[in-house]
Amino acid sequence: MTDLYPADRITRAHKATADAGLDALLLTPGADLRYLTGYDAHAQERLTCLVLQASGPATLVVPELEKAAAEASLAGALDLPIAAWPEGGDAYAFVRDLLGTAPTRVGLSNRMWAEQALAFRDALPGTELALAGEVLRGLRIRKSAAEVEALREAAHAIDRVHARMGEWLRAGRTEAEVGRDIADAIIAEGHVSVSFVIVGCGPNGASPHHAVSDRVIEPGDPVVVDIGGVRADGYCSDETRTYAIGEPPAEFRAYYEVLRAAQEAGVAAVRPGVTAHQVDAACRNLITAAGYGEYFIHRTGHGIGLDGHEEPWIIAGNDEPLEPGMAFSVEPGIYLPARHGARIEDIVVCAESGVDRLNLADRELVIL
Amino acid sequence: MTDLYPADRITRAHKATADAGLDALLLTPGADLRYLTGYDAHAQERLTCLVLQASGPATLVVPELEKAAAEASLAGALDLPIAAWPEGGDAYAFVRDLLGTAPTRVGLSNRMWAEQALAFRDALPGTELALAGEVLRGLRIRKSAAEVEALREAAHAIDRVHARMGEWLRAGRTEAEVGRDIADAIIAEGHVSVSFVIVGCGPNGASPHHAVSDRVIEPGDPVVVDIGGVRADGYCSDETRTYAIGEPPAEFRAYYEVLRAAQEAGVAAVRPGVTAHQVDAACRNLITAAGYGEYFIHRTGHGIGLDGHEEPWIIAGNDEPLEPGMAFSVEPGIYLPARHGARIEDIVVCAESGVDRLNLADRELVIL
Repeated sequence: MTDLYPADRITRAHKATADAGLDALLLTPGADLRYLTGYDAHAQERLTCLVLQASGPATLVVPELEKAAAEASLAGALDLPIAAWPEGGDAYAFVRDLLGTAPTRVGLSNRMWAEQALAFRDALPGTELALAGEVLRGLRIRKSAAEVEALREAAHAIDRVHARMGEWLRAGRTEAEVGRDIADAIIAEGHVSVSFVIVGCGPNGASPHHAVSDRVIEPGDPVVVDIGGVRADGYCSDETRTYAIGEPPAEFRAYYEVLRAAQEAGVAAVRPGVTAHQVDAACRNLITAAGYGEYFIHRTGHGIGLDGHEEPWIIAGNDEPLEPGMAFSVEPGIYLPARHGARIEDIVVCAESGVDRLNLADRELVIL
Repeated sequence: MTDLYPADRITRAHKATADAGLDALLLTPGADLRYLTGYDAHAQERLTCLVLQASGPATLVVPELEKAAAEASLAGALDLPIAAWPEGGDAYAFVRDLLGTAPTRVGLSNRMWAEQALAFRDALPGTELALAGEVLRGLRIRKSAAEVEALREAAHAIDRVHARMGEWLRAGRTEAEVGRDIADAIIAEGHVSVSFVIVGCGPNGASPHHAVSDRVIEPGDPVVVDIGGVRADGYCSDETRTYAIGEPPAEFRAYYEVLRAAQEAGVAAVRPGVTAHQVDAACRNLITAAGYGEYFIHRTGHGIGLDGHEEPWIIAGNDEPLEPGMAFSVEPGIYLPARHGARIEDIVVCAESGVDRLNLADRELVIL
């Protein structure tokens, strides 16, 4: 195994499972499975599942025709049996037999498909179904030094895409045309897949999760560009900058400076012991004080790692204190419906000494 | 709405839900939601859910910050209320209140995340959870004429990628290098995303779901190339061809011809009333008779549409008769462990008159 996917995680997961009062975890393809084994399995209708017992063995259950691929993955280098169920067979009965005595309570991957969750419900009558996230959040939420470096490389890759925005973003082009160029650059700058491309010009910038459209970018438009991808090692990038195509409206200039100060305040608030709520408040209070509170309609941020959105949630009411290694976005926005909007987003890591900011692209308003 | 996403599907879904003895469907982002509404929503931790009652209204429930995007999608053109729950609010209580009286039995999207399925379990105590697939398979499994044409365009797009294989596939390059070129071409030839790229040379061709590796392609290697993507309209492509880099081993030549005849026999068997089992048998019997039965280790095919793998499953024991409009792969393979393998895959549609083969790339062994 590698620094990024160390072999001791399964041992830690056994203990955490027992501590949480669960008898077993059932982990289908996705970030939980990859985190524990390094195996980047493809989600599909044939069951692949890490069966990890609190006080028993862990076994990677795979469809027969995935066995060679599983063995060739990082999981093949672990001290982890890989058991194949035959094509056309009953994979859920196979797992039930592997578990032996019916467990009292099992934790399912949070993103397991419902058809698999209900198949486990039916194969394990009397067993209570819970979420593996209860157990694995404690492991995944604090990134190791190697994970922080992987996230930093991802952040720098997406910084490079933002640095090239002037090549593509200009009046007369549609959001979709610009989006295609950005997607190509996300791959070219070091990702293996594109997670999302938001190019919201003019009024579309006021819809935080707008993607792209055939709207033609006009002179004076503010443009929100929120982009991210996944690197080969599995770690995600996510960064937003807001641009202006020539001189933007004066009211936009005014709230952009409020936003920039708010984002700085949110980042500056990050240190061990501060709560997620307090980071949100550090952003939100400045925006509210400037009279734009009703236009900041979402939480301040989300965790990031092997999933693009994961814990911790940086949201009002989340009193979880930050701990060293937590990685998340700080991304306040101001959105004037039907007019325009702005968002500034960086990924940061809570470090022992304060904040480690991973995205470094300029946050001054860039006029193209 | 469009020919591809007609507005009457929700009406048909209401009736099918009632007929199946379900009180409501709860459909999160994915193919079911897109099929019924045209809305290509992004799966994320904030709940987006089409709440469709058997004998009540349908409502698209979205997070507040997705409302503008939902309204701008094809769903915005439907006679379908779009209701937003507030950031930080309880989306599951919002759905429960919308349902009014607690339903007896609801169908969840087959690919809903477990964390959402269990949140519905907890929000709707006493309600039995089932799968929406019970209801929607009857609609989705038979493609409309417009859907068949969308699949045909996808098939021709991936045919064009295979036609260009000689540009990239040659001795001295790694599978991963070839795979990157193929991925670029999948996008360039008319897809918006790459679903998978399998380049299995030499012994890697004997692992059906191998992806790519750093193995260098050698003279004489057979190479299995199985590739697919998603077009902007949501429909998927999937096609396998096997190539040889110069003259392959004689034993490979021998079984390749068996495989080609078997794939032709499977395709030729397709017509209304023939069962999925019989299509599988048409392929398998030829391979078994030639002595390679133990090396054909997977089912013959899978349905395709808005999901890359969906019903019908073309597998031994599936006695469902084919009906006009069913679209699926016919993809037998022969895999000699640690030596090499071959697979030939076309997407076909069961037509009134027999078979409509969508992939047209040459199936003779192509020697590069």
